[in-house]
Amino acid sequence: MRFFSDNAAPACPAVLDAIVAANRVDTAYDGDRWSAALDARFGALFETEVSVLWTPSGTAANCLALAALCPPHGAIVCHRDAHIQNDECGAPEFYTHGAKLLLAEGDGAKLTPARITQVIDLIADDVHRVQPHAVSITNATEYGLVYRPDEVAAIGALARARGLGLHMDGARFANAVATTAAAPADLTWRAGVDALSFGFIKNGGMTAEALVFFRRDLVDATRYRRKRAGLLLSKGRYLAAQILAMLDDDIWLANARAANAGAALLARAAGGRLVHPVEANEVFVRVAADEAAALRALGFDFYDWAPGEIRLVVSWDQSEAAIRPLADAIAALA
Amino acid sequence: MRFFSDNAAPACPAVLDAIVAANRVDTAYDGDRWSAALDARFGALFETEVSVLWTPSGTAANCLALAALCPPHGAIVCHRDAHIQNDECGAPEFYTHGAKLLLAEGDGAKLTPARITQVIDLIADDVHRVQPHAVSITNATEYGLVYRPDEVAAIGALARARGLGLHMDGARFANAVATTAAAPADLTWRAGVDALSFGFIKNGGMTAEALVFFRRDLVDATRYRRKRAGLLLSKGRYLAAQILAMLDDDIWLANARAANAGAALLARAAGGRLVHPVEANEVFVRVAADEAAALRALGFDFYDWAPGEIRLVVSWDQSEAAIRPLADAIAALA
Amino acid sequence: MRFFSDNAAPACPAVLDAIVAANRVDTAYDGDRWSAALDARFGALFETEVSVLWTPSGTAANCLALAALCPPHGAIVCHRDAHIQNDECGAPEFYTHGAKLLLAEGDGAKLTPARITQVIDLIADDVHRVQPHAVSITNATEYGLVYRPDEVAAIGALARARGLGLHMDGARFANAVATTAAAPADLTWRAGVDALSFGFIKNGGMTAEALVFFRRDLVDATRYRRKRAGLLLSKGRYLAAQILAMLDDDIWLANARAANAGAALLARAAGGRLVHPVEANEVFVRVAADEAAALRALGFDFYDWAPGEIRLVVSWDQSEAAIRPLADAIAALA
Amino acid sequence: MRFFSDNAAPACPAVLDAIVAANRVDTAYDGDRWSAALDARFGALFETEVSVLWTPSGTAANCLALAALCPPHGAIVCHRDAHIQNDECGAPEFYTHGAKLLLAEGDGAKLTPARITQVIDLIADDVHRVQPHAVSITNATEYGLVYRPDEVAAIGALARARGLGLHMDGARFANAVATTAAAPADLTWRAGVDALSFGFIKNGGMTAEALVFFRRDLVDATRYRRKRAGLLLSKGRYLAAQILAMLDDDIWLANARAANAGAALLARAAGGRLVHPVEANEVFVRVAADEAAALRALGFDFYDWAPGEIRLVVSWDQSEAAIRPLADAIAALA
Repeated sequence: MRFFSDNAAPACPAVLDAIVAANRVDTAYDGDRWSAALDARFGALFETEVSVLWTPSGTAANCLALAALCPPHGAIVCHRDAHIQNDECGAPEFYTHGAKLLLAEGDGAKLTPARITQVIDLIADDVHRVQPHAVSITNATEYGLVYRPDEVAAIGALARARGLGLHMDGARFANAVATTAAAPADLTWRAGVDALSFGFIKNGGMTAEALVFFRRDLVDATRYRRKRAGLLLSKGRYLAAQILAMLDDDIWLANARAANAGAALLARAAGGRLVHPVEANEVFVRVAADEAAALRALGFDFYDWAPGEIRLVVSWDQSEAAIRPLADAIAALA
Repeated sequence: MRFFSDNAAPACPAVLDAIVAANRVDTAYDGDRWSAALDARFGALFETEVSVLWTPSGTAANCLALAALCPPHGAIVCHRDAHIQNDECGAPEFYTHGAKLLLAEGDGAKLTPARITQVIDLIADDVHRVQPHAVSITNATEYGLVYRPDEVAAIGALARARGLGLHMDGARFANAVATTAAAPADLTWRAGVDALSFGFIKNGGMTAEALVFFRRDLVDATRYRRKRAGLLLSKGRYLAAQILAMLDDDIWLANARAANAGAALLARAAGGRLVHPVEANEVFVRVAADEAAALRALGFDFYDWAPGEIRLVVSWDQSEAAIRPLADAIAALA
Repeated sequence: MRFFSDNAAPACPAVLDAIVAANRVDTAYDGDRWSAALDARFGALFETEVSVLWTPSGTAANCLALAALCPPHGAIVCHRDAHIQNDECGAPEFYTHGAKLLLAEGDGAKLTPARITQVIDLIADDVHRVQPHAVSITNATEYGLVYRPDEVAAIGALARARGLGLHMDGARFANAVATTAAAPADLTWRAGVDALSFGFIKNGGMTAEALVFFRRDLVDATRYRRKRAGLLLSKGRYLAAQILAMLDDDIWLANARAANAGAALLARAAGGRLVHPVEANEVFVRVAADEAAALRALGFDFYDWAPGEIRLVVSWDQSEAAIRPLADAIAALA
Repeated sequence: MRFFSDNAAPACPAVLDAIVAANRVDTAYDGDRWSAALDARFGALFETEVSVLWTPSGTAANCLALAALCPPHGAIVCHRDAHIQNDECGAPEFYTHGAKLLLAEGDGAKLTPARITQVIDLIADDVHRVQPHAVSITNATEYGLVYRPDEVAAIGALARARGLGLHMDGARFANAVATTAAAPADLTWRAGVDALSFGFIKNGGMTAEALVFFRRDLVDATRYRRKRAGLLLSKGRYLAAQILAMLDDDIWLANARAANAGAALLARAAGGRLVHPVEANEVFVRVAADEAAALRALGFDFYDWAPGEIRLVVSWDQSEAAIRPLADAIAALA
């Protein structure tokens, strides 16, 4: 019983169907009709004109965005526990040609204007210091917390005031939308976000993420960077088709709601053992080593996050029935 | 009627089946059973121990190989018309952090020891010059010619003598194997090749290529480079499964034979109009602008390669019946 | 008797005096009064507002300029024999993070609009190709030829029309000014040059070159790049002082005239043996191996440029009396 | 009265003399007799075979060393307040092509094995994390503390045990030698140091630092990197000569002793106001804003390090008589 990672979940039926449909011949790279439809489809969703590129991974989307927002001699402020800092093997440094990540604090991997200011106010304005050029936040965060529109907007206002770009790592953006019930526009460009990595893979996709530029002037150079990174797949239509299929009938949102609901079920069971509030599909629980072993003995698979702490991730395809046994087992811990 | 590019062809049925099969949950990144099987399966094919990584594009495979063989301050000798020079938007420079491509001449994009020597003998052995560290050849070449085992071996011997690594861009390696009927080992490591980009996508795959290291010591750092480039897809099992499916029953070879046979049919029709010998699935034909227009008017789609010259590419799925009309139309040109 | 390289020449007395003067304490990095004076002093020389940075080498000046004019995913057109291509160990690729040099032909390492067009017209306007962003020319060229103002202006007009930046490697700019008697402005910004590497070291300086930006918007990011490259020397005043000293009393021009005159003397002696017209301080002469040996036996030191060809370089400090013996020896060759 | 920075100090007489001597013609780049003598001279000083390159800045020396010890996909552990992190505008990231600095804590910018272990033990051994490849320590530290041989050796042992390279930023290495009276070998290679940036500029030099490789296999690639960075000055003899002049008669050590003695004088005056123990030539003193203003009104120039804290740096050329007035003024603060 898989609670290890939403990356281990299958692709949803609509995605498989889309791939079969895309197998009818069209053309190479991103010259196909599906790729061409992305701007309009995301434009409708976000209620504004956007430029959208597919990428085969979230790391790729994140780092193309960062490279668009920060020069090699600049810095990007992010949380100390951000995925871009800890889980991408230096991809931001690779794509930006050596920009520096400046690490801020914040509960549950969540930044605030005060936390960001704390970091950038230390940077003297001279050539000896790497100057900040961008901020990157993750919504939902690496610990399953969610930024509300006003929280993003506060950071967006700071970014504008300081001349910084604002990137949102939305590997679990769908979960954040599901939780907040906010308009996608309110969580992003209306709150000052310049570029969004809109995740599909963890949410029932297979091999495609969307990089959404609200600052459309950033897309032209990014097309070259994408190609130059070996990310312009020669049969890109299979990626575009996946994304479009998940936008149809708001599958992306239904999938996220399902995962969030499952996590809420686990959260209720965990009660006082929760390390963080559960606002998306990740649940961090304090369990002793023997308790973790007992849960595993029951067939549950999960990640040992830290000593005395496990991470449970609910995926789009897990029904209440599939989750209930784990919830019961957690509730049954002494 | 598509003769534009083998990238526009569909994926073959076995690949679609494999993707459906991989949709049964396994695990994330390359921790799955399919990814784990690659070394052994390619090892059997190549009759030696190899280390294999999937990548989502041929450019990615090529450039990870080049980064493994050449430091940032080094150079790579390739043909003036090589894909890595002309069609990857500087990806080799990106992945190698600025190594230089040294361009050699050669008929049909084919290198020889003499052509390579011509280039590297001009490089004085001092710190003012970028020193060569590797050679990259393409088999089949960008003009559809094929290196035989002895031709590769001659280049391999030169590479060894000069302390250079040897990379083979095998975006159409299957076609070269089909043409030469050589053992894959004889076309590669027995001839001195250190790393092979083994192409599947143009040959009926969807989104997966294999990077095969015969020098297995190169794979460890490459794993980090792959991750760092955003190329370690979080659901990598779908890529590994595609590759394995095409190795089954030698589908990769059957597909390439089919495409080669189609190209041979066109070559016979083109006769004296051929720009290059046709040894794989690409056919370059001299046609005047009005002749090209006439062919297009009949519904044939192809690439204008140069003034008075078109490129026709046959894909794995095109039967003789599908190709015959174009062959007849070419033969019917005055 | 040194004709090997103008890099082997001593620094001129004014430079030594300036260093002693700068040894009176001022302040660190480029906060000193000499560094602060550069913009105004070069502004007067060039009859326009400029932004000027000192660098400790010509390679550094060239590559900071190129990095300002070309993004990592772009290309720079230069001559096949340009210093930036052949003699800087890939420094342009290092500083630009992997931009590509596109090599053009031209007699005596001299480019023309037609030669540049020949290269860039081959580049399809799509993401698969590295797109040209800049042109770099060397004045005087690597073979001692000189661009006149109208020749630079023709290239400048092409650059503007195609949206390309224009850099001039002026390691021997002083020699070019001396030869043409042109106003420095006419050889540079009035002819479309955006950035000039103004060489002092070969011309009697010690360790300082000037990077002159006519497009002043380029200087801000360049300050960070200079620091980031370890080129912002902590006692930069010694570099600025050298440059200012050579601007005083037009020492830079007098030194160049002296070197050019010496080269002209050798050119007259070499007569029909000259490989290139002699327009600056370099003289390329056809001599057989035994003739070269005979000259060396007489105590003359020079560079074997190619089989049957030697390079003689005259430095600022070599009087006619110092050069005459070599001229006579050359004239005396059969 | 200058206590702002040792970078603002003049060059010492022996250095000026050496420059005049080097102005006798020799040859270009590092082909001169002075450059050729470096290995032997430093070898004698360090009682082992070493390979030494001059560089025009400490940042350049540091970053060439780091690039030799850490691949682009690796990480370097250093103190949170290290010069390479805070004062080089990302030069380590530039030279290493994007390696990450991992920041450790420690009093007075000094690392210990425990502090280093704290950082690297958090790094899971998988491709998602940037793996540590090197440690960099600064001796004397950025706050004027000094590592003793046994302290370096403890870090060296850890580095060896974990497979990490060890770099020492010795911008003020001379001061550390002066303080500890240790053999230079005991502070470096015998304690596990692989590469040392041996600073001369702050200590009475002008424009030359020495990069000393105890692991001599690292020097070959570094020669290319130095050239590629525009750091191989065309008249390098002036740099080598400076260094050799300061090694003569142990001027480097005498200068450092003088600066340290001056700092000790200030330290005694500051007494309980000291922020850090004073072990080299830097003195950090707690003074209120009005006290700082009062000191400045007396003509003393210094750096406001932090609110309520100033930094005083004593240079090689400041006699006790020159320092006494500041010492008295500090002692006279209420």
